[in-house]
Order: sequence, then structure tokens, then C-alpha cells
Amino acid sequence: MSTGPSNKAAGGRYFEDFRIGERLVHATPHSVTSGHVALYSAIFGPRFAMQSADTFACAIGYPKSPVDDLLAFHIVFGKTVADISLNAVANLGYADCRFLEAVYPGDTLSASSQVIGLKENANRQSGVVCVRSQGCNQRGEIVIDYARWVMVRKRDADAPAPSAVVPQLPKAVEVDALGAACPRIERASYDLALAGSPVLWADYQVGEKIDHIDGVTVEEAEHQIATRLFQNNARVHFNQFSEGQGRLGRRLIYGGHVISLARSLSFNGLANAFHIAAINGGRHIAPLFAGDTVFAWSEILAREALLGRDDVGALRVRTIATKNRPCADFPYRDGDGYDPAVILDLDYWVLAPR
Amino acid sequence: MSTGPSNKAAGGRYFEDFRIGERLVHATPHSVTSGHVALYSAIFGPRFAMQSADTFACAIGYPKSPVDDLLAFHIVFGKTVADISLNAVANLGYADCRFLEAVYPGDTLSASSQVIGLKENANRQSGVVCVRSQGCNQRGEIVIDYARWVMVRKRDADAPAPSAVVPQLPKAVEVDALGAACPRIERASYDLALAGSPVLWADYQVGEKIDHIDGVTVEEAEHQIATRLFQNNARVHFNQFSEGQGRLGRRLIYGGHVISLARSLSFNGLANAFHIAAINGGRHIAPLFAGDTVFAWSEILAREALLGRDDVGALRVRTIATKNRPCADFPYRDGDGYDPAVILDLDYWVLAPR
Amino acid sequence: MSTGPSNKAAGGRYFEDFRIGERLVHATPHSVTSGHVALYSAIFGPRFAMQSADTFACAIGYPKSPVDDLLAFHIVFGKTVADISLNAVANLGYADCRFLEAVYPGDTLSASSQVIGLKENANRQSGVVCVRSQGCNQRGEIVIDYARWVMVRKRDADAPAPSAVVPQLPKAVEVDALGAACPRIERASYDLALAGSPVLWADYQVGEKIDHIDGVTVEEAEHQIATRLFQNNARVHFNQFSEGQGRLGRRLIYGGHVISLARSLSFNGLANAFHIAAINGGRHIAPLFAGDTVFAWSEILAREALLGRDDVGALRVRTIATKNRPCADFPYRDGDGYDPAVILDLDYWVLAPR
Repeated sequence: MSTGPSNKAAGGRYFEDFRIGERLVHATPHSVTSGHVALYSAIFGPRFAMQSADTFACAIGYPKSPVDDLLAFHIVFGKTVADISLNAVANLGYADCRFLEAVYPGDTLSASSQVIGLKENANRQSGVVCVRSQGCNQRGEIVIDYARWVMVRKRDADAPAPSAVVPQLPKAVEVDALGAACPRIERASYDLALAGSPVLWADYQVGEKIDHIDGVTVEEAEHQIATRLFQNNARVHFNQFSEGQGRLGRRLIYGGHVISLARSLSFNGLANAFHIAAINGGRHIAPLFAGDTVFAWSEILAREALLGRDDVGALRVRTIATKNRPCADFPYRDGDGYDPAVILDLDYWVLAPR
Repeated sequence: MSTGPSNKAAGGRYFEDFRIGERLVHATPHSVTSGHVALYSAIFGPRFAMQSADTFACAIGYPKSPVDDLLAFHIVFGKTVADISLNAVANLGYADCRFLEAVYPGDTLSASSQVIGLKENANRQSGVVCVRSQGCNQRGEIVIDYARWVMVRKRDADAPAPSAVVPQLPKAVEVDALGAACPRIERASYDLALAGSPVLWADYQVGEKIDHIDGVTVEEAEHQIATRLFQNNARVHFNQFSEGQGRLGRRLIYGGHVISLARSLSFNGLANAFHIAAINGGRHIAPLFAGDTVFAWSEILAREALLGRDDVGALRVRTIATKNRPCADFPYRDGDGYDPAVILDLDYWVLAPR
Repeated sequence: MSTGPSNKAAGGRYFEDFRIGERLVHATPHSVTSGHVALYSAIFGPRFAMQSADTFACAIGYPKSPVDDLLAFHIVFGKTVADISLNAVANLGYADCRFLEAVYPGDTLSASSQVIGLKENANRQSGVVCVRSQGCNQRGEIVIDYARWVMVRKRDADAPAPSAVVPQLPKAVEVDALGAACPRIERASYDLALAGSPVLWADYQVGEKIDHIDGVTVEEAEHQIATRLFQNNARVHFNQFSEGQGRLGRRLIYGGHVISLARSLSFNGLANAFHIAAINGGRHIAPLFAGDTVFAWSEILAREALLGRDDVGALRVRTIATKNRPCADFPYRDGDGYDPAVILDLDYWVLAPR
């Protein structure tokens, strides 16, 4: 009978633990409630009418307000962390993310992933893992489907490397693939005064740049509370004792926190862009720390009609978030790289009434 | 086709943008849920039994626990900010605020305002805007009705001033106007042990002063979380980058935060004053910052029976909140002005069982 | 007619105010909602599948997910504070705590206590009060029953001391008394992948020690938000103005906060120990302050079958929490006392599927 140290606590998977094609069922399904919605509101401050008021959602054709698209995303993402990225060096990006079903309070979300890419780094200390992850509701319907790259440490630099597999992923989600999670909107019942803006889909011009003006300062308690709500247990977000001794000296804020802040700030200029239909690509350019103030601006990259729908149209948007730098002059590239204030470069599709 | 800066993000209205009599429908109706109630509890710490326990509320005649009166107030107030006070210099006060319908989890609140007063300041840099605002539920019933003065910057000092209109508002809400939101209470089922105090309406004496004893220190994360829950987007509460360069050098805490803290502290001494029926007037005397500790004391200004009701009576209360100063000696006036520790002077009517 | 200072605000009971055998009905029953569950999740980060997902709970035999056992405990405990421990010097410990009914969102909890022990300290400045407290739901069913010792100040050192009564309490809850709050589990439907671990009751060995690996740093806003959610109004947790002048110079974090953090950390190694059936004893060894990082490890003290049940078995666990010290080497005793990093020594029974 063993007495003494146990191996029952999991330290997370390392690069050499992943196999191409393997499927991972992630732990801890999670029931989303109005409690999550209130907390999401309180931490990120979204003001899109459709997610805020059941009356508004019902008027335009939803059974009630769905939860914020990004709340559903963060919960699904959070489940993947324990299996995929507990030993990550860096979260490299997302691609081909589609929102396929609206999520409502009362739904239970679970997640699974398949390994679709593996490539050891030249230094043999780590490698890039690419997974396709899916979030499902309690009826087994896929609500979110996305690909993600992450750089994961090796346990043992000498462990043999798998053959490199680099998946081909689309630069952007096709317009035809948008809108599955959005029922036909009763356009006549969409109240622009209650929504906060008269600006419709057709009013946006390709190339138009919108400064979202406001800034929001992030506190340690806020990002910890949000990230735990998502059951994301990545260590770098919570443990000042160890992070204080690390490279950054600080707890690192979950990248998704920045995405949600930027989306909420974008209400000022994109108030009627009520649904994120897809994320084409997202990159965390620089880390965010507590005490920093986040600003954001957006550029309209494309404006596309949806086949067979005259109720809503799609806008492809690039939203750039910065820290400690207002965005009146739209900071973005700086020579070959990014302006040093940029922390997020997000390319996504939103739907807005026509 | 325009490419480049957009004018779709709103910078808020300035003094010269307001017209006497104009009606503003505010954006983003909001469904109030048990999530809001839990967060309100967690941030402010109220312990009034009627709002805390469905069983207690049902026993005395409510269908279930309504939400805290001030939670409803803050949500309604929050909607007015984007249209009224985004460019405010100072929030000058409230008057004639009546709570007309109980608000329950599941209700959706919306808000509108009418401009009832305008007066440019002598320096022509700003002016006082007075609005009457109303919050409605999903059935169109007015739940809260109040007047508010705010000093708003001018965009252009040379813009012509409107004729001055100064509305006449009552110094206090009439006793006859109280109680609409409170059903007839089953007095025999009002359990004083569960409510936390044997002290009834008739036990209070006019002129009696009550030190609420406890103090509560406010953190940045707390006031930001609460103020965002109310969808109040006033910039001074959230943006340390810009506020750090401003006059105060700090984020300013939403004045309503102080009102809710003072109300929660007042449980110790006013445990059976379970409903705020009206706010006669409220003034924010000095700003509150994170790290400050709030104390409060109350004076009974009047004790009045309600016509035709022997279940509950009304108490007119002045609650004074201070920062970093206990209230055992009831700090209030200091010569012509206020004691320097005073931050709030609130005059309101509460109902308590007889 | 009195005008002037009132005695309506309560300063809390002192040692000489307690009488052996007296029964205290505590104020402010509280309805527990999905809002509380979301906040508890967001503050403490539990990942046990049964409390996280209604689908998981239903599959194994619950009507839906009950709330975390410790959330129910903290709410019941919180109600006792105003009557028992407002003038406490120290919270000495718990014993014989049994969880007797599952608590679900929608339930309303109330609490009462009986004084079962009193012993003045030799210095006559304070004394030990021992109470047995019970939490009930809206049907009057006892959901939690526990004993607690607390050292309470005397108002007047010269007040006469009661005869000393020291209750006999069991060192541990009997195995036969476990399991009342846990329905028969559909073992075949208990999905180990979704639960996050293949380790079952029989896999644990007596004497086995598990390092839960992760650490979590606590912020002032977090513990204040949680402790207010529990309506625990002990002054030491909230008032920096007075605590800053006190012995510790800091707000003291509610001991229950540490218990919940340690329980959540213990998921990594005890993922299938889904229910706390009893707490045999709990001692807060040292105070925790904001900014500290909490770690935890556990030892299996006993593994016992439950009479007549082949679905779940009981594990007696000692969980030790430390501050600012990882637990890979299982810090515990240090000579006659505790390792200086230890802040909690908790001895409890959990149930896990067989």
C-alpha cells in the first residue's frame, strides 16, 4: 500500500503527449445561467440591446436574450485549457471560429478538441499544437467551432518529435457560412432608439475607421473573477507567487478578457452589430496587466449581403485594442511590426440589421 | 465612398444640444435577474429581510422578493448617462424621486427623460441641465420617476444660450404620494426576529440620531463592477489613463455607489425600514475614491402615518455618509458648509411596519 | 420625546451576554439563486462537474445541480455572525459539521444557534463561547448542523463569569452519519471524462498525500465580495480605516474564504470527491491577507464504505492550506506547532463514486 506522494494531481500535457488526430473530451461541463450573464455584464460592460433585454430579443425574433457570443466562447475555451494549454508558452492565435447556435441561460456547455497540427520548434524545447475545438450544448448541437494554435513546452527536450503537420486553415470564414446562430430578424420591430444608434449595415463603408473613444482600466480582481467564471485554470492568470518570480513578474491577463473589453467598447460606433457570427483570426500582440487601460478602434474590412436574407447583413471588422493609448489616430502597424501600444488584432464578422 | 475617420461613435451631448421640453428615449433596456440581485448583495451587503428572502416577502404579501429599490434606481439612472451626463462637470442632485412599482427579477427596465430646466452658467463654459427621468418596466408601468440636475460642459463657449428655465420642484415628496410600490403588508406575518430588529415605525422619534457604526472600504474593482452592471458608462469611473491626468488624478466613484453603501449600513438601526418610498433630495458633497472607508449615520426628520394604511408608516430620514471618519458624534454641518468628511446628504422616505 | 443619540443600532453581544442553553434565531433568511452560484464559481473557481452542470447532476440522480456545499455553509455561518461573533477575538474552530440536505438554487436558508459551552478566560477579558448552529431550508429541513467555538470579548472585565461548561464533541463524524444529502448515484451514468479524472474511491490509499499544485492570489475586492454575498458582517473583513489602526494593520480575510479556495484547489487530485459530507474539525492556524497566494495539499486519513451503499464511498481527508508556499513537500507540523506557512488545517469527509 502506497503511503506518500500521489500522482493523482495532473500537471497538464506537454508537447510530446499530443498525437495527430487524437480527440480530447474536456472536463467539467458548465450550465450557463443569468448569474453568468450578470457577471459578464458587470465585468465587461456590454450594452448591445439584444443580449441586454429579453423584450428586445423577443421583439426581433429570439425566444429570449441569448448570452453574449463571447461569454459562450470563453466558457468553451476555458474547458480546453486543462488539456491543451496548461504548459503553454504562448497562445498564438485563433482561426475559422464560427458561432453556430445561440446559447441561452439554462444551457449546459461542454467541449472537446481534436489535434490537427503538430510542429516541433527548432530549439526542441517546445512545439506548436493546433487543435480544432467544439463547444456543444445539452442537446449535442455544436454551438462554437474553432481552430487554435498554441506553443506548448516539452517535458523532455530529447523526446522524439512527431512528423510536422501544419493544417491549412482559411484566412476568413466564407460569407455563406455566416448567420446560422441568428434567426430571421423582425426588422420592423428592431427599435433603433432602444438599440442606441440609427446606423445600419448599409451605412458602413469599407475602409471606414471608428475610434471607440472610451478607455477602461482593468483590476486584478476583475480579470481573476471573469477567468474563473469561465473555469479557465491557466496558472499565469492567478498565481502572483510564481508569476512574480517569472519573466513578466506579474499575473498575465487572459487574452479573451481583452477581446471582450474591446467588443464592449465597440458598442460606441457599432451599436447595431448585435451578433458576432465568426472570428476569422485573432492575435494577442502584447500582454495586458492589471492597472493598464484598454482602448479600441475598428476598421470595416468588408460589407457583404447574406444569401437569401434581407433582414441582416455582414460586416467584416478589424478591431485593434491598445493599452494606455487612446485611438483617435488609429494606431496599428509600425514598420514591419505593430505599434508598441497594440495588444490585440481581431478580424471578425458581425451581423447588423439592414 | 468615405474611407477614414467615422462619426459613428458618439461623444455625448453638450449643454447647447439640449432643448426645453425635448424627450429623450434612452438606449439599452435591461432585464434584471437574480444575477443582478446576487451581485448587488455581494457589492453592497444589504441585509433587509424582505429583499433577501422570497419566503419573507411572500409571508408579508409580496409575490416574491422585489429587487433592492436602489438597484432599480441605478439601472434606470445608468441608462440616462449616455444622453445626459457624458460631458457632465458635476452631478448636482436629485429631487422628487418616487418609487412607484416594485421591480422583480425577470422584469425589463427602460428609461426616458424630458428636459425641464436649462440655465447657462455665468462663465459661459457650462450650464445646468434639469431633466425628469422615468424608468418603465416591460408592461410600460412607471417604476421610478425623478428629477435630476447636472452641470454639463458646452462644446463651444460662444454658442448662444437658451432662455433660462428653472423648474419648481418640491422640497419633499408629499406623504400622500408614498407607498404605491408597497402592497398591503400582512403585519402578523412580519417576523421581527428574522428581520433582525424589534424596532417598529412608532418606536422612532423625530430628531433621533442613529450611528450605523460599521465602516466599509471600497475597492476599484468593486465600484467598477457595480457601475458597469448598471450600464452606467460615465467615463470618470473607469478610465485611470485619462483620470490620472485630470484634476482629481483618480477614478471617481459613482455617487450612487455611496447611496447604496449608506443604505446597507443603515440596516444597523433601521432594519425594518424595508422599502425606500421616495428620495426627497440627494447631494454628493465630496468625491469618494477607492481605498476610502465609508461610514454613515441617520436622523429621523419626520414620522407620518399613511392615509388609510395601518400596516406600514413612513419615516423621513436624513442619512449622512462620511469617508474615513466614524459617525459616533454625527458629523454634519461645519459653519456654513459641511464637515469636511461628509460625502453624501440624502433626504428620503422609508416605510416600516407599524 | 428623545432627541439625540439612539440605541437602535446593535453593537453585538459580548461574552457576558450569553447564557447556556439559550437559543438564538438569526436574522435575514436568504434565498440562494443561480446568481450566488455564478459568483461563488467566479470567486473560488470550483470545477467539480456535479455542481457545475445540471446535465451531469441529473444523469447521476440529482434533480439538478445543488449549490456547492461550502456556499451553503458560508451562508448559514454568515447569519450567525451578528449574534455570535461580532465582538470575537478569534474564531477557534468547527466540529461535528454534517451536511444533511442538498441545497438548490431557489431554496431559502435561515439559521439558528444554541449556546452549548461557555468558559471565561483566565485574564477575564474574554471567554470561549461554543454554539451549535443549524441552517434550515424553506421547508424547515435542517441542511447543515455544526458546532463552533469562538473567543468573544467581555464588555466589562468585572462582569461575573458563568459556570464553565465545556461540551463534549466527537473528534470525527461517524461514518454511519454520512451521506444523507447525497441521493443514490447512478454509477453507470457518472462520466469520468466529463468529471475530469478516472480516479475512484477505491483508488485512494490511506496515508496518500496529494499536492494540489496550483496557487491562487487573493485580492481585497474578491474576499469582500464573497463575504458580503454570505451576508457575513464581521467588521474585520471590511473596514480598513479601523483595521489599519489595529494589531494586524490589515483587513483580515474570512476564514471560510480559505476553506473554499482549498476545496477548489483540491479538484486537482480529488476531482471525483464531489460532495463534502461532513467536517470533522477545522482550524484557522494563521490569518490570510490580500496579496497572499494560497496553496493546498491533502492527505487521505481514512477510506470507508457506507452501510448499504455500493454507489459511493467515503474518504476522510486532511487538507492543509498554506500562504506563499507551494506544497510539493507537504508542509504541516514544525516541532510542536505548525509550519509557519500553514493557514488552515481541515479534517473532513468527502464522498466519491466507487
